Amino acid sequence: MSDVTVIGLGPMGAALAQALLRNGHRVTVWNRTAERAEPLVREGAILAPNPASAVAASPVTIVCVANYKISYSVMDTPEVAAALAGRVLVQLSTGTPQEARDNAAWALEREVDYLDGAIPATPPQIGRPETTIFTSGSTSAYEKSEALLKSLAGNVPYLGEKVSAASTTDLAFLSTLFGSMMGFFHAARIIESDGLRVDEFGSMISSLSPAMGEMIKYEGDMIHADTFEQPQSSLNTCLVTVKMFVEQARDAGINAEFPTFALGLFQKAVDSGYGNEELGALIKVLR
Amino acid sequence: MSDVTVIGLGPMGAALAQALLRNGHRVTVWNRTAERAEPLVREGAILAPNPASAVAASPVTIVCVANYKISYSVMDTPEVAAALAGRVLVQLSTGTPQEARDNAAWALEREVDYLDGAIPATPPQIGRPETTIFTSGSTSAYEKSEALLKSLAGNVPYLGEKVSAASTTDLAFLSTLFGSMMGFFHAARIIESDGLRVDEFGSMISSLSPAMGEMIKYEGDMIHADTFEQPQSSLNTCLVTVKMFVEQARDAGINAEFPTFALGLFQKAVDSGYGNEELGALIKVLR
Repeated sequence: MSDVTVIGLGPMGAALAQALLRNGHRVTVWNRTAERAEPLVREGAILAPNPASAVAASPVTIVCVANYKISYSVMDTPEVAAALAGRVLVQLSTGTPQEARDNAAWALEREVDYLDGAIPATPPQIGRPETTIFTSGSTSAYEKSEALLKSLAGNVPYLGEKVSAASTTDLAFLSTLFGSMMGFFHAARIIESDGLRVDEFGSMISSLSPAMGEMIKYEGDMIHADTFEQPQSSLNTCLVTVKMFVEQARDAGINAEFPTFALGLFQKAVDSGYGNEELGALIKVLR
Repeated sequence: MSDVTVIGLGPMGAALAQALLRNGHRVTVWNRTAERAEPLVREGAILAPNPASAVAASPVTIVCVANYKISYSVMDTPEVAAALAGRVLVQLSTGTPQEARDNAAWALEREVDYLDGAIPATPPQIGRPETTIFTSGSTSAYEKSEALLKSLAGNVPYLGEKVSAASTTDLAFLSTLFGSMMGFFHAARIIESDGLRVDEFGSMISSLSPAMGEMIKYEGDMIHADTFEQPQSSLNTCLVTVKMFVEQARDAGINAEFPTFALGLFQKAVDSGYGNEELGALIKVLR
């Protein structure tokens, strides 16, 4: 008997299994191509011959494969379902909120205690105190896997019984992250176009990131309260800035896709009559 | 004689004058509509009758008006030029890098010692130790105004003699900030669509902002080095995420403008053959 089974040994699954082993847990693993288990077996993992015996080896099974379709191809057999009944399944594969809901329904039918999780981190960040894993779903599944999950990430918020919450929160986090990255890539073109150094700029922006986080928190509060009438940064002021992105791109002869996209959204918000409201009122043209 | 003159008393200019007064500097002010000076005069500011006498009152003049066009309408007179010759002009109005270059050329012709600055902050943040003002241009103008500027913001990086550097860096910072805000507004729609709370999500994202800053720093280093071959986050992996934004928007019936824009950029990068490279390689389709 082991403490935990890990199904899927891609870069993320392997990082999870390794962190569990290094925290002293007894770990069973399974992967479609067994060779990927070799480094983990050398560190003490037990390689199971098939998914059903892998699941049977531990009270908690963590699945981390490329997507939910692959997860079903491994887990949706009578043998696995029989082995999993009454035990805990922690689904850490990346998927949409709807996929999390569907998988929870699948688990409920099979009397499997289901926790959905989402990892807003890269494999090298697994096992660190500052790393986050969002979780949601069955409270008892969370309680039974909490100690294991805390070996994987120091910050494991449990977002409640609504099983889609982890996936929704992760996707929303990624939307914010990807937005900042796309803004940064255009920023890098601005910097390059003036002959300045992108690495020095990146370091400077990194040091300003708490201020950016504060602004996100502020706009989130405004959006929740749905009050935009006392602007710190009005949409009219922001539109001036966005027009400057377009003007600089034209002056410097650089790609203008990001400024053009931004201008469309901000112009729509101002044309809709929200110019004297707070930046966060931009969400009204997205509703 | 005062220590510093502030031209322009809009929300930002007034905040600058107030912070200078509260730090014990003697301040002369001028504004097109003189009534805006009243609260500052009550705090000890001297109101000048016209721009030329305002400039004549101090060794350093700070201009902070809505844009460079208004700045010229105030500053580009023979009387002001005569009063300003041999003194320091700190231009804090918001403008493009090209406008900073043009204003520096204007100043050079008139023997004015010119420093360009840009403020990535809101008026309530002026005077705080964590607030930033980027500066660039004449070294001597920086040295002569440094103590004054540090009354306005604890962090006043001098980016060198290239006069456009402050404006470029500020615009690039704003591009990153606006990107993160647009990503966040779509994130807020994801959160709302699942019945979760945007304010709680905003707080959580705010606490993750240092990690987002770290990622920006990492991608900035990769872009500067122009090496994308050892991906932590490959463009293929990122494309999967972006497709999930589109899928979730369809599942939940929410606006898909941000995911659609992002998908266009990421798909172009993968179609261009950069799929196995680091996320930062996205800049290649923007070059």
